[in-house]
Amino acid sequence: MNPPAQTDTTPAPRQWNTRALEKARRLKAIEGWLDNGVLKAERIVDALETLIQSGDRVALEGNNQKQADFLSRAFAKLDPARVHDVHLLISSISRPEHLTLFERGIARKVDFSFAGPQSLRVAQLLEDGQLEIGAIYTYIELYARMFIDLTPQVALVCAVQADRHGNLYTGPNTEDTPTIVEATAFRHGIVVAQVNEIVDELPRVDIPGSWVDVVVQADRPFAVEPLFTRDPRHIGELQILMAMMTIRGIYERYGVTALNHGIGFDTAAIELLLPTYGAAHGLKGKICTHWALNPHPTLIPAIESGWVESVHCFGSEVGMEDYIEARSDVFFTGRDGSLRSNRVLCQLAGQYGVDLFIGSTLQMDADANSSTVTLGRLAGFGGAPNMGHDPRGRRHSSAAWLSLMKNDGPNSAIGRGHKLVVQTAETFKKGGEPTIVDALDAIAVGKQSNMPIAPVMIYGDDVSHVVTEEGIAYLHAAEGVEERRAALSAVAGVTPVGMRADPAKTAELRRRGIVAYPEDLGIRRGEAKRSLLAARSIDDLVAWSGGLYQPPAKFRGW
Amino acid sequence: MNPPAQTDTTPAPRQWNTRALEKARRLKAIEGWLDNGVLKAERIVDALETLIQSGDRVALEGNNQKQADFLSRAFAKLDPARVHDVHLLISSISRPEHLTLFERGIARKVDFSFAGPQSLRVAQLLEDGQLEIGAIYTYIELYARMFIDLTPQVALVCAVQADRHGNLYTGPNTEDTPTIVEATAFRHGIVVAQVNEIVDELPRVDIPGSWVDVVVQADRPFAVEPLFTRDPRHIGELQILMAMMTIRGIYERYGVTALNHGIGFDTAAIELLLPTYGAAHGLKGKICTHWALNPHPTLIPAIESGWVESVHCFGSEVGMEDYIEARSDVFFTGRDGSLRSNRVLCQLAGQYGVDLFIGSTLQMDADANSSTVTLGRLAGFGGAPNMGHDPRGRRHSSAAWLSLMKNDGPNSAIGRGHKLVVQTAETFKKGGEPTIVDALDAIAVGKQSNMPIAPVMIYGDDVSHVVTEEGIAYLHAAEGVEERRAALSAVAGVTPVGMRADPAKTAELRRRGIVAYPEDLGIRRGEAKRSLLAARSIDDLVAWSGGLYQPPAKFRGW
Repeated sequence: MNPPAQTDTTPAPRQWNTRALEKARRLKAIEGWLDNGVLKAERIVDALETLIQSGDRVALEGNNQKQADFLSRAFAKLDPARVHDVHLLISSISRPEHLTLFERGIARKVDFSFAGPQSLRVAQLLEDGQLEIGAIYTYIELYARMFIDLTPQVALVCAVQADRHGNLYTGPNTEDTPTIVEATAFRHGIVVAQVNEIVDELPRVDIPGSWVDVVVQADRPFAVEPLFTRDPRHIGELQILMAMMTIRGIYERYGVTALNHGIGFDTAAIELLLPTYGAAHGLKGKICTHWALNPHPTLIPAIESGWVESVHCFGSEVGMEDYIEARSDVFFTGRDGSLRSNRVLCQLAGQYGVDLFIGSTLQMDADANSSTVTLGRLAGFGGAPNMGHDPRGRRHSSAAWLSLMKNDGPNSAIGRGHKLVVQTAETFKKGGEPTIVDALDAIAVGKQSNMPIAPVMIYGDDVSHVVTEEGIAYLHAAEGVEERRAALSAVAGVTPVGMRADPAKTAELRRRGIVAYPEDLGIRRGEAKRSLLAARSIDDLVAWSGGLYQPPAKFRGW
Repeated sequence: MNPPAQTDTTPAPRQWNTRALEKARRLKAIEGWLDNGVLKAERIVDALETLIQSGDRVALEGNNQKQADFLSRAFAKLDPARVHDVHLLISSISRPEHLTLFERGIARKVDFSFAGPQSLRVAQLLEDGQLEIGAIYTYIELYARMFIDLTPQVALVCAVQADRHGNLYTGPNTEDTPTIVEATAFRHGIVVAQVNEIVDELPRVDIPGSWVDVVVQADRPFAVEPLFTRDPRHIGELQILMAMMTIRGIYERYGVTALNHGIGFDTAAIELLLPTYGAAHGLKGKICTHWALNPHPTLIPAIESGWVESVHCFGSEVGMEDYIEARSDVFFTGRDGSLRSNRVLCQLAGQYGVDLFIGSTLQMDADANSSTVTLGRLAGFGGAPNMGHDPRGRRHSSAAWLSLMKNDGPNSAIGRGHKLVVQTAETFKKGGEPTIVDALDAIAVGKQSNMPIAPVMIYGDDVSHVVTEEGIAYLHAAEGVEERRAALSAVAGVTPVGMRADPAKTAELRRRGIVAYPEDLGIRRGEAKRSLLAARSIDDLVAWSGGLYQPPAKFRGW
């Protein structure tokens, strides 16, 4: 009960700086491989073998855009007899060598958010017992744990440039780097940064040198994927119809000004209809003014037409650099002129600062639960769960948020609004498979992989609206589970779920405004033509940008 | 429909860098008052009058701990004929001059999170029509909007030191500064930093100089409040009883390892019981290992006893600096040895990375809605709403989180866990007023102030447990609204709500484990003695710390 200072049998004092000492010990061991403070590139495998110890938590920067690929390639070459059982923290398992780490026995356990391109291999390694999943996260949830119980011993990150003091310039693709580095550096972990080049003076400092331990110049510039580029040529008339309904039936109706668009052709169609269809309905300045969004090339026509006040970005997009720099009133840019993105802050903005999230789904059940997980694939969640839920910590109001208020709790004086969480889906996929199904594949995948709960991306009780090519279900206005299901069935077409719709109930729901078909919104299906798109090709986007947008080669038709 | 480049009546090209130009214009106008890049302190009023324009959004760093008080004092001296109708963004309205801005007509509108010490004056100014409230927020929600539609034209922040390049050292009280600066600097706003001193070399860089426009040396070190210091002398036996119940009935039962404690004596009691009562029950290493928490002095005995693996902090605490530096295995510290706090990242950790939030409330209704708002005061929310809700974007599991899972939705295969959101309250306040009431004062306050919804701090449907001196209501286990109310009534003592408890129903709830009285948890009320506290005074805390904790003068009894 008494303070130990007052007892006379005090044990030997505990050492309270073991982490800092261990860090110093490891760094000391690689000292000989440094040249003027910079690690010699040819020593990278030796250095990682010294800096990383078996059992360490290692945060490897690999997200859905930029990749610390020089470091990940070196990491995969370590001797598993020396370094094994590493616990990998990675937002996106994107590159083959990320899984080589497990095949070779260097890493054992992984906590991650997204595994799109490698999702089949993740499932296979899990089945073979070569990989153990800690958990699958939405991005910022993984970062949150880096400040609690998953602080990394080592972080492997990437930047564009470093100066002689270790200051880093991350440039347009700042993304996750500051967060990973902060979690590591301030808990006495070791921060290793690969850079494209080392210069005397940086355009600006994104991460101070006193947070960085080792800088190494990579053999080639870090890899980065143009993940958010959608070629308007591939936008079809059903997507245009859904976009028209979304603009009139949701954005106009609720006056949605601050929003996030998920990735895909459905949302690209909306972006490309603003300067045409949206303008024709007098909506400029009334909707879609403030965005939490990657710099989608398909937003260029809306920006050029004066629709967009501001865009805060999770990351950047290949080819958009010059355009962003020339539109600094709209984007967040530094003194050097280039974009400052920040995934955590943009996710925060997308969670708490905007009124609407809209995203496409690959599969949805009768209760509007949805998932992009399909059998045999462990794709993960990305950022959707964070933005596609009703943030119950929100306390500020907006007209859009208040319009979804229900006072159906036990006390009618205590109410709160609701985020607009919109899911879009064509009722059938290209291959003829229904999108709206009785049971999500995610349930079976969860069981197969021994997950404690099914890996649902967006939960139905968070979803306020579902848009299909048939119409809009205003789920937030439905009363009770059965009526929600009836509303969703009414827009589910000839899927098994849609076939159960009762025409009389559907008619009632349309009268009450809980279901709207295109004609209920003043939209003729025949209007939904590609000629409505402000840009119909990548070439058009380049023209809109005045030549500032420089699409990657694979998107060029010329 | 066509890109404008293809039309022949293109209007004059729009200027796309008006923000950057305006910033350059304003900075140019104060150039003559700079001395080697640093603003002369005697010119601060002139400079602010030039840098701030009427109608600007100005983010003033004033949180519940540190204050940019040199800048706020100067700000309040501006000529309202020159600068008026400013829109103030401030996390905590703490200082008298924050409201002088409104009395003098310099500022007009405010968005804020907390107004504890000034809450009466806020209410008065609002009634007098001198102040307009944009909205009241939980902290990170306000920051989120700084990246969307509330980007500041000017930010007034504070740091410990600057170097000649404008790099800032914020030291232990880093808190909100990096976030406010990022939102401002990268949208071409002007960042003005007051510093305690200007030095040749900083201990570490917290904010790069390329994000900062103007540095000024303040007349005295910035103000900072020891807000999280609780003198153990004021912890009473009811609080000790509640702490015992919380430890056994919640922390032990669910195996809570990662958590956040709200401010107050209730949670201080828990912290001080860990090394004594908690240890006697064999709980060391099993509960309370990872924290999102300010450096509470009352956590010192638990740290010294080896309970605590890590603490990530929102801010710092006056007097704890040397202790933190000497315990770097536990705290997040920089190369220089001092704490790196970060309010946004700690709020994120507290939202998504921990399993439990516990906080005290001043008033709670029969449905467990609670608020610290009382009549005539507009106190705001602080951080509680962000941490005191079930984060529905969470996708990772833990044993504690899963133990609150209910599969009571329409589809039993789709379930998710729930955060432990615990509210503590003695049934009566010191003055004899009941804490548990039929209608929250917040409802009347909301109406009086024309708020769109009542300013509820924590919503009852997010609350999983209520702890009073009578017992614990396990609300998450109750079935339906009526049973939740019955469970809460059963622990509401002789308040009006408690008087409605039906003894037969209470007995049933105790049998089913939905209500637990101390004896149901193996706790004798007579055990709840102050002798159980690991420290019974500030002096004891100093002794536990080996003299490293240096309490502010007002807490010293010697």
